[in-house]
Amino acid sequence: MRLFTTPASPWVRKCVVSIIELGLQNRIELIPTRWPHSWATKTVEFDPAFLDATPVARIPALVTDQGLRLTDSGVICDYLNAELGGYKLLPAAGAVRWQMLSVISITNGLIEAQISRRAELLRNVSERSNDFIEKMRQREHRCFAALDPAAVEFGSGVDLAQIAVAAACGYADFRYPDDDWRSASPKLARWFERFSERPSMRATIPVETPQ
Amino acid sequence: MRLFTTPASPWVRKCVVSIIELGLQNRIELIPTRWPHSWATKTVEFDPAFLDATPVARIPALVTDQGLRLTDSGVICDYLNAELGGYKLLPAAGAVRWQMLSVISITNGLIEAQISRRAELLRNVSERSNDFIEKMRQREHRCFAALDPAAVEFGSGVDLAQIAVAAACGYADFRYPDDDWRSASPKLARWFERFSERPSMRATIPVETPQ
Repeated sequence: MRLFTTPASPWVRKCVVSIIELGLQNRIELIPTRWPHSWATKTVEFDPAFLDATPVARIPALVTDQGLRLTDSGVICDYLNAELGGYKLLPAAGAVRWQMLSVISITNGLIEAQISRRAELLRNVSERSNDFIEKMRQREHRCFAALDPAAVEFGSGVDLAQIAVAAACGYADFRYPDDDWRSASPKLARWFERFSERPSMRATIPVETPQ
Repeated sequence: MRLFTTPASPWVRKCVVSIIELGLQNRIELIPTRWPHSWATKTVEFDPAFLDATPVARIPALVTDQGLRLTDSGVICDYLNAELGGYKLLPAAGAVRWQMLSVISITNGLIEAQISRRAELLRNVSERSNDFIEKMRQREHRCFAALDPAAVEFGSGVDLAQIAVAAACGYADFRYPDDDWRSASPKLARWFERFSERPSMRATIPVETPQ
């Protein structure tokens, strides 16, 4: 099966870390995509195979050998975990599943704010809203603060909640190093230092997406 | 348990239609929220109970009697369906689950584009990007076209995929009546005409959110 990727996206990183942690590297072909910076406000030119994989035209997008098309990191991770991973990263049911999905849902809001802020920063100055950038920054801060207590509950193993949070922490360091999220979230910072050492994390450190 | 809502949001509508279809109206208190139009670019003043429910500070947000906080319509619907609904609206596993989630993931991309376009239209003219509005319109159009064949597969009953698509169709009619999504999606249009007659849909026709 095929996963369309970029090396900068935290959404993609959630999926690729999950793939590595589930040992699925040999079953899923990663297909890099290019994005001119005009993506922030314009429909860019797409490879037909990419557009066939996802009418949303955002990465990540997964196409299975049976032609199933999944176009959302949450659904993709859910699928990999359930169908190919024996529920190793997220239980199929029960309290632990919902506790993890609570963390994941907050983290998705955080990552969406990080990406929206990035898109705003890529706009022409004449169309840029500093208010909007500040709104996103405040949302990110609230989410990092809310996630801090969760870090204490994280086990020594790996799961989809930790993978999602790690993707958000890594993206904050990549794009917004001046934010200092560690001050709002010292427990999360200590956990992230350890979690970052996993080979799956070291193999997916964000770099700029080719234009 | 409590669900924070607005009467305009398609994300909220997904949850409320699911609640009605699962017969959970008496178990979940709907808590309306107010949003000045400045939400598009600014952090608005929040009720402390709302902010406690979700650091993302977006609706919908669900707080269970056990204090579990879920802040994302996909996760909320997944929870209601699995924990309180006996998987009536989405199977726990298997091909049908993933086919429905494929439709849902495309529809989430569509709704996100609808909402992003709405936020852009609420900006001051000096900070508005017509390119961005057009980019979202094109994404919505691609998604509606891609969803059209799915309508043929929809059963006569109700499920989370149909609920999601119906929320997107209803929001298009509410906010963007000139788009004429029915031309790109005639099969979807016929299905929506029938699905709209369900009491759950008639009870949740979008109206403006109080400011």
